[in-house]
Amino acid sequence: MPAPGRTVWLIADGFIPDRSTGPEPEMLSHETASILNAGETDAHVEMTVFFSDREPAGPYPVTVAARRTQHVRFNDLSDPEPVPLGTDYAAMVVSDVPVVVWHTRLDTRQEANALALTAAWPAD
Amino acid sequence: MPAPGRTVWLIADGFIPDRSTGPEPEMLSHETASILNAGETDAHVEMTVFFSDREPAGPYPVTVAARRTQHVRFNDLSDPEPVPLGTDYAAMVVSDVPVVVWHTRLDTRQEANALALTAAWPAD
Amino acid sequence: MPAPGRTVWLIADGFIPDRSTGPEPEMLSHETASILNAGETDAHVEMTVFFSDREPAGPYPVTVAARRTQHVRFNDLSDPEPVPLGTDYAAMVVSDVPVVVWHTRLDTRQEANALALTAAWPAD
Amino acid sequence: MPAPGRTVWLIADGFIPDRSTGPEPEMLSHETASILNAGETDAHVEMTVFFSDREPAGPYPVTVAARRTQHVRFNDLSDPEPVPLGTDYAAMVVSDVPVVVWHTRLDTRQEANALALTAAWPAD
Repeated sequence: MPAPGRTVWLIADGFIPDRSTGPEPEMLSHETASILNAGETDAHVEMTVFFSDREPAGPYPVTVAARRTQHVRFNDLSDPEPVPLGTDYAAMVVSDVPVVVWHTRLDTRQEANALALTAAWPAD
Repeated sequence: MPAPGRTVWLIADGFIPDRSTGPEPEMLSHETASILNAGETDAHVEMTVFFSDREPAGPYPVTVAARRTQHVRFNDLSDPEPVPLGTDYAAMVVSDVPVVVWHTRLDTRQEANALALTAAWPAD
Repeated sequence: MPAPGRTVWLIADGFIPDRSTGPEPEMLSHETASILNAGETDAHVEMTVFFSDREPAGPYPVTVAARRTQHVRFNDLSDPEPVPLGTDYAAMVVSDVPVVVWHTRLDTRQEANALALTAAWPAD
Repeated sequence: MPAPGRTVWLIADGFIPDRSTGPEPEMLSHETASILNAGETDAHVEMTVFFSDREPAGPYPVTVAARRTQHVRFNDLSDPEPVPLGTDYAAMVVSDVPVVVWHTRLDTRQEANALALTAAWPAD
């Protein structure tokens, strides 16, 4: 079986809440791109971040080894620049081998956390 | 690469809660259609809103510039008419170039917010 | 354009919480199959409910008029039998014309509500 | 009609919270792979769990009878080994007949539960 997945994934609704309730890093409000590489070849991934009022940021490089998953927090991206909090954004994830990408938001602005997750949208 | 995405997206479960807890506009109960235009051409988008007991409302025009994302709050639509709160609805998003559309609901009717998001369903 | 959508949709994770916090019917724990008929012909829909330990229940008939959406609460199904609370189930939605189906759960067992929604899975 | 569904499903964002608030087993923080077998033949399913820093675990065998659904809690998997709490993971579900797989997380680390669900991603 070839590696399951696709090579281009889109996330249209990005937003990292700018406040948090509870202990860090676990309960810090955050967003994640979770990448599964179920294949036998390491995946070299580039993430690009889109905004409403400026040119995109990136690329942010990530390597996901064969038969591994990486849950990448957008909060932790720093090079070439951090992703601003409390700001509408979107993202594109491009890999050199097929992977599967999901998107998750943990929102702890109020006293009990809210959670949302869904598969990213495969463009190819 | 052609612009990633599709040109017709459907949202079947729309509902804007009619009460909120917490500071506006951030914690106002709302629903969003988040549109990513990762391509090199501006997207001219029209949104239509469907109801259970009357003819659809719209079209609501939105422009999403090339390499930009717009997170459109259904609460903010006003022309030709506002989207009523506390009412079951659905929506169709049609673009002249490929885009990606996601749907998000923030529900702050009770003391801590609830959150749900998913990709809209591409019809073409 | 033909009516957008598909004619067979599957929901794999059904579960209606058996307790609620807050005023009914709004905050009653519930699950919904939201059906959008964006086409020009009325949709005659049949829903079937699957369980872990018994034969399926149904069919439950629903009509969704042309250019309308119906958000059908599983809690309200009664003929041929109600859907039990606090019980794992799944569902299949079959329509005679293309529609789009999403699934939503509102869980108010604890003091602030939780919410999840996603598109059902189109099988045809 | 052949059985609706696919035979390979991927879950990219797995994470079982390691704390809970409320009565067990109902409100225990957990993740579920909900499998619907709407066809006429029993499904023999194997689940594999992927991690960020070690080789995958499994296979975990599950049988889903014809016309039945099984909501499998990752928390309950024990053979060949349990799935660790508070740890990033991902999963692959492979069936010998078509099924539909969804993924759900219930997070009760804080005082009111959070909930997320989505369809897994079909690879074939």
